[in-house]
Amino acid sequence: MEFTLDATCGNARATTIKTYHSTIKTPVFMPVGTAASVKALDTRDLIDLLDTHIILANTYHLYLRPGDEIVKEFGGLHGFTKYNRSFLTDSGGFQAFSLSDISKANDEGIEFQSHIDGSRHFFTPQKVLDIQYNLGSDIMMILDDLIALPATKERLKLSVVRTTKWAKASITYHKKMQERGIGRTQNIFAIIQGGVDPAFRRQSAQELTALDFDGFAIGGLSVGEESQAMYDTVAWTTQFMPANKPRYLMGVGTPEDIVEAIDRGIDMFDCVMPTRNARNGTIFTTFGRLNIKAARFKKDHRPIDENCSCYTCQNYSRGYLNHLFRAKELTYYRLASIHNLHYYLQLTKDAREAIIQGDYATFKKDFYARRSQ
Amino acid sequence: MEFTLDATCGNARATTIKTYHSTIKTPVFMPVGTAASVKALDTRDLIDLLDTHIILANTYHLYLRPGDEIVKEFGGLHGFTKYNRSFLTDSGGFQAFSLSDISKANDEGIEFQSHIDGSRHFFTPQKVLDIQYNLGSDIMMILDDLIALPATKERLKLSVVRTTKWAKASITYHKKMQERGIGRTQNIFAIIQGGVDPAFRRQSAQELTALDFDGFAIGGLSVGEESQAMYDTVAWTTQFMPANKPRYLMGVGTPEDIVEAIDRGIDMFDCVMPTRNARNGTIFTTFGRLNIKAARFKKDHRPIDENCSCYTCQNYSRGYLNHLFRAKELTYYRLASIHNLHYYLQLTKDAREAIIQGDYATFKKDFYARRSQ
Ligand SMILES: [Zn+2]
Ligand SMILES: [Zn+2]
Repeated sequence: MEFTLDATCGNARATTIKTYHSTIKTPVFMPVGTAASVKALDTRDLIDLLDTHIILANTYHLYLRPGDEIVKEFGGLHGFTKYNRSFLTDSGGFQAFSLSDISKANDEGIEFQSHIDGSRHFFTPQKVLDIQYNLGSDIMMILDDLIALPATKERLKLSVVRTTKWAKASITYHKKMQERGIGRTQNIFAIIQGGVDPAFRRQSAQELTALDFDGFAIGGLSVGEESQAMYDTVAWTTQFMPANKPRYLMGVGTPEDIVEAIDRGIDMFDCVMPTRNARNGTIFTTFGRLNIKAARFKKDHRPIDENCSCYTCQNYSRGYLNHLFRAKELTYYRLASIHNLHYYLQLTKDAREAIIQGDYATFKKDFYARRSQ
Repeated sequence: MEFTLDATCGNARATTIKTYHSTIKTPVFMPVGTAASVKALDTRDLIDLLDTHIILANTYHLYLRPGDEIVKEFGGLHGFTKYNRSFLTDSGGFQAFSLSDISKANDEGIEFQSHIDGSRHFFTPQKVLDIQYNLGSDIMMILDDLIALPATKERLKLSVVRTTKWAKASITYHKKMQERGIGRTQNIFAIIQGGVDPAFRRQSAQELTALDFDGFAIGGLSVGEESQAMYDTVAWTTQFMPANKPRYLMGVGTPEDIVEAIDRGIDMFDCVMPTRNARNGTIFTTFGRLNIKAARFKKDHRPIDENCSCYTCQNYSRGYLNHLFRAKELTYYRLASIHNLHYYLQLTKDAREAIIQGDYATFKKDFYARRSQ
């Protein structure tokens, strides 16, 4: 991975990340393609209509179905999906933790039951890398010890200690595998834990950034805490993250969250919100959220957002989308997902431009001003 | 409507139909866009990926939701969907008859309850044209008296008599409306009834073709009768249909049905089969049907059909489609629908080529030979 810091503006950063498969300009939003498919879209949509340069796929889901060995046979995620730009894969730990009825972490890893067939599995730091080698992702996330918030101080401490322990096991294993010719074009990111506790966050950041990872993520946020607590934790944690490596805030968030986190030094984002909300009828626009199923849109000839250059806004009216939603037409899900993802991608693109121009403060002010009209 | 008979080969015909919005080369398959959307596809898919020149929309569905008055406000179906080629709309009678719990036909029309909210409605020959004027379709179908087969001779007779009566009312009304400047670019087709009874089919065909319609359909088939009975009825009925007007077999059918009906003089087809079967996992290919969810496709790198030039076959493997189907990914529905529709469209295109070459018999023989391999 080549990394360039292109510009800074306060704590906000514009960077360039070059993987084996693509060049990624940050801040960047990565659409979530859970089961090797961004819901309702196909690969050509992601390239030709949305010009994404990196998307996410979920290790847990692909491990269980179709199985990482099968994905490997197709030449990894790139060959399987024909998406020839970058993939980031998570470790699978989050889903093992949240989707499984039975999920137990011990010092060696996480035991869980498949949500599909109830079969039992055990994820270790090495195991989740083996899966990700098969998936062939450009950025692999290591196994971390997730906890539900609020947590006791003891549990938080254990999470930080265990996450560092697993990170050391991961980086050691990855170096060894690369020496054997496996995962040579793949990068590996560690995940900082510590809840909303400043001391634990600092400890976790310092311990992990001392290790030779290609980038660092902040995990364990956006799990129900107040927005301000999240913003404060991000601002606090990024201080201890190296300037010369990518910074990724996992699973965040609303457009507001993204604007605030960029301001606090984050480069990379992923979230199911744009696609999931699209399917529920909630549309993101430059002037705020809009509920496409509302009766007032029935006769509305305008596009969703007159400021939007997306495929959906260039072709279809609110009235037609309102109808498609009410008639439960499958076409709706694709068109709404394209718009919402375009909105998120454009937001981070515009943020980058503002950072390069050296005026992120005005960008942020305008962002809020348009939404309160 | 301009109509040209380009070539014949036995009873098979290649024709050209010019409507206000497009030029349609027949034999043609018309994808079904029930609620102003071909399920899982958008308008650009229908034009850019499938190059359809005519699609169908359902009057019953659009009358109930969003309402034909709303569609009219958007400039009819063309403005509403942005599909700027031809639309054919049915009369709504079939859905009023089949989707409603309570549906009663009398000499004036069909009374029915909405399947959406239970509200009561009454379709008359004039009413269904008024709705179709609002929809702005290029080809409007008149109200006919549908019956379930098998039916008594009395009921069949009543259907034929009533259908002729409604046809006369329809054409009279349409001429009057056109004089008033309404529906001037819209064409009107009558529907021949009579079940599988040769005498009634002849009577219905003779009575209707004596009237000044732009084209004629054969209705009331593919409702459970044997294939051979359908083929015989088509062969029998087309004898009594004018050579200089389009012939449309409604709601038919399998690829085999289409190949046989073309051989018996049919020009136009519509059916939900390619899209509905796609969603259920049944894929049409030059070598027959294929069940994409079968385990044997899990590791299959080949496209669905190596002979197919569709978007899906050009981009994705059976293995990936098998995975998307099993994971219930929305993307699957679009990709499979594109392939199945492409198959149907290519089939009618190839049939046209064979008719023009003057060797439909060889085309038909090859069609069956490839499927039995
Ligand atoms: Zn848009
Ligand atoms: Zn195909």
